[in-house]
Amino acid sequence: MLHQLGRRAYSSRVASYPSYVKIVEVGPRDGLQNEKTLVSTADKVALINLLSEAGLPVVEATSFVSPKWVPQMGDNADVMKQIKRKEGVFYPVLTPNLTGFDAAIKVNAHEVAIFGAASESFSRKNINCSIQESLERFHPVCEKAHSLGVRVRGYVSCVLGCPYEGAIDPAVVANVAKTLLDMGCYEISLGDTIGIGTPGTQFSPHHTTHSQRASRAGSTLKMLQATKDVVPVEKLAVHFHDTYGQALANILVALQEGVSVVDSAVAGLGGCPYAKGASGNVATEDVVYMLHGLGIRTGVDLTKVVAAGDFISSVLGKATNSRVARALQKPSKL
Amino acid sequence: MLHQLGRRAYSSRVASYPSYVKIVEVGPRDGLQNEKTLVSTADKVALINLLSEAGLPVVEATSFVSPKWVPQMGDNADVMKQIKRKEGVFYPVLTPNLTGFDAAIKVNAHEVAIFGAASESFSRKNINCSIQESLERFHPVCEKAHSLGVRVRGYVSCVLGCPYEGAIDPAVVANVAKTLLDMGCYEISLGDTIGIGTPGTQFSPHHTTHSQRASRAGSTLKMLQATKDVVPVEKLAVHFHDTYGQALANILVALQEGVSVVDSAVAGLGGCPYAKGASGNVATEDVVYMLHGLGIRTGVDLTKVVAAGDFISSVLGKATNSRVARALQKPSKL
Repeated sequence: MLHQLGRRAYSSRVASYPSYVKIVEVGPRDGLQNEKTLVSTADKVALINLLSEAGLPVVEATSFVSPKWVPQMGDNADVMKQIKRKEGVFYPVLTPNLTGFDAAIKVNAHEVAIFGAASESFSRKNINCSIQESLERFHPVCEKAHSLGVRVRGYVSCVLGCPYEGAIDPAVVANVAKTLLDMGCYEISLGDTIGIGTPGTQFSPHHTTHSQRASRAGSTLKMLQATKDVVPVEKLAVHFHDTYGQALANILVALQEGVSVVDSAVAGLGGCPYAKGASGNVATEDVVYMLHGLGIRTGVDLTKVVAAGDFISSVLGKATNSRVARALQKPSKL
Repeated sequence: MLHQLGRRAYSSRVASYPSYVKIVEVGPRDGLQNEKTLVSTADKVALINLLSEAGLPVVEATSFVSPKWVPQMGDNADVMKQIKRKEGVFYPVLTPNLTGFDAAIKVNAHEVAIFGAASESFSRKNINCSIQESLERFHPVCEKAHSLGVRVRGYVSCVLGCPYEGAIDPAVVANVAKTLLDMGCYEISLGDTIGIGTPGTQFSPHHTTHSQRASRAGSTLKMLQATKDVVPVEKLAVHFHDTYGQALANILVALQEGVSVVDSAVAGLGGCPYAKGASGNVATEDVVYMLHGLGIRTGVDLTKVVAAGDFISSVLGKATNSRVARALQKPSKL
């Protein structure tokens, strides 16, 4: 009897998941930008083509920032000119200002991305202005993009924690996301830039907030629930770094909350220059493996993504950060 | 309006979690057993004491198997004699037969563990008998244990996949778990020995089972739901290896299903000798970090577990597999 009671008591907890998840591959931009080894244009182009051939519907290609700040992206125009554009695939590029935007348009960018932080300290220390001021600077980019029919994606960084101020108030994340929505962003990607957040906080009377505060990390569940109050969940994406190994668990909770767009980087490329312990983005291979296991369609061919990860890891001369890729590389009966 | 509708539609999905989770530290046995470097008795004892001092309520200490098969555990009696037994902490030991059981009792073991596989092929290839036969061999151990008031823990291996036959039928897992329950085990630990499983399968009409079958991996949700039908959830523990990086996501789903006992190994020690690509157990540090982030009590001091992990990693001369430990080791503003 006992176990049958248990079954009934818990059955309402069974989560449903989206039937399709759009994976936004950010390896060639967010990933490589934070890798020290300079990658040749030819290798970047080869990587982007391997990723689109693997079935990824969106491949963030490069960034139109000053090469003084991000030398790795200095060949942005050449990358955009040389990639083989697959039909139906989007290749967004980061454009921090009108100069970058105009340069991107010149090489036929059809989607751009802008960004804001959810931490005042992070914003002030890194770009020397408030969150609000930083977002206002994007107005001319958004206006010009809309007049030209170019889609704009918005990023919010530090949504679950900041290297300077610790845990972030979910209300601040919601506000920044809403501002980006009002500026016309078609999708807003919520980023745990330093990979410190955990899936959630229980809603039980026994809930102790002490350990939550002690970890100085935010909760994916609380952050998403606050943001969904002001931005339709269909317009939200999640973007996790795997520094504390929490990325897949965080993504699982986001799926349960109805999010159906997930950013990831092949081979777990990247890191965060502002937090030395930070590892890279969650690996696309590991995300695809989990999603397919959940019976969720992605349109992505896992074997081909693993091959793309092998390629770029060998170019960088380093081991992949994807656990799935490592498991599949080793000889085994499975 | 749209986002408010969204909020209501998804609000029923909010999972509740146990308020307390018992962590069963398996590093000194399941972890070290699969490490090639022979560890001295003094270092094993130091590790076990560091773990109990860190607040872990259960520390699996050693295995009473023939040193011919598992040389790393050849000093089992000395380990049991030399550890400092902390009040309230359990130190289970593996006992495959009566000889092992008697040797364990001689050095005052108060809890023993027995094990069965959920895969016929795994059972036949590794111990040359059927699952049922292998379980029957434990009857004398269980009877003697109960007559002496010694607790018996049961392990089921290969619950989400087997190196020889791929995905495992949840009904088989449930049967093995029920047999162990009927033999008097007070707790049954369900192990994804090769770390291949994913959190679940959605219950939607759009559900495609193709990718699930293609991955040859089982679903934690299905496996747990089948097992909970025959064993009260209060008696179930989960035991994940992190080979494909899915362990924390699998644990999250198990918590949502009402499981409140989680096995893990400090520093992610171990591996699986039968699947070369297999990495170790999920790291205790990463589990504790997630649980505390969820507001779940464990009684474990994360800093002290990280220190225990640093100690054994340095003894083994290898890098930790815990992402949390790696993140905390590096200098950072957090």
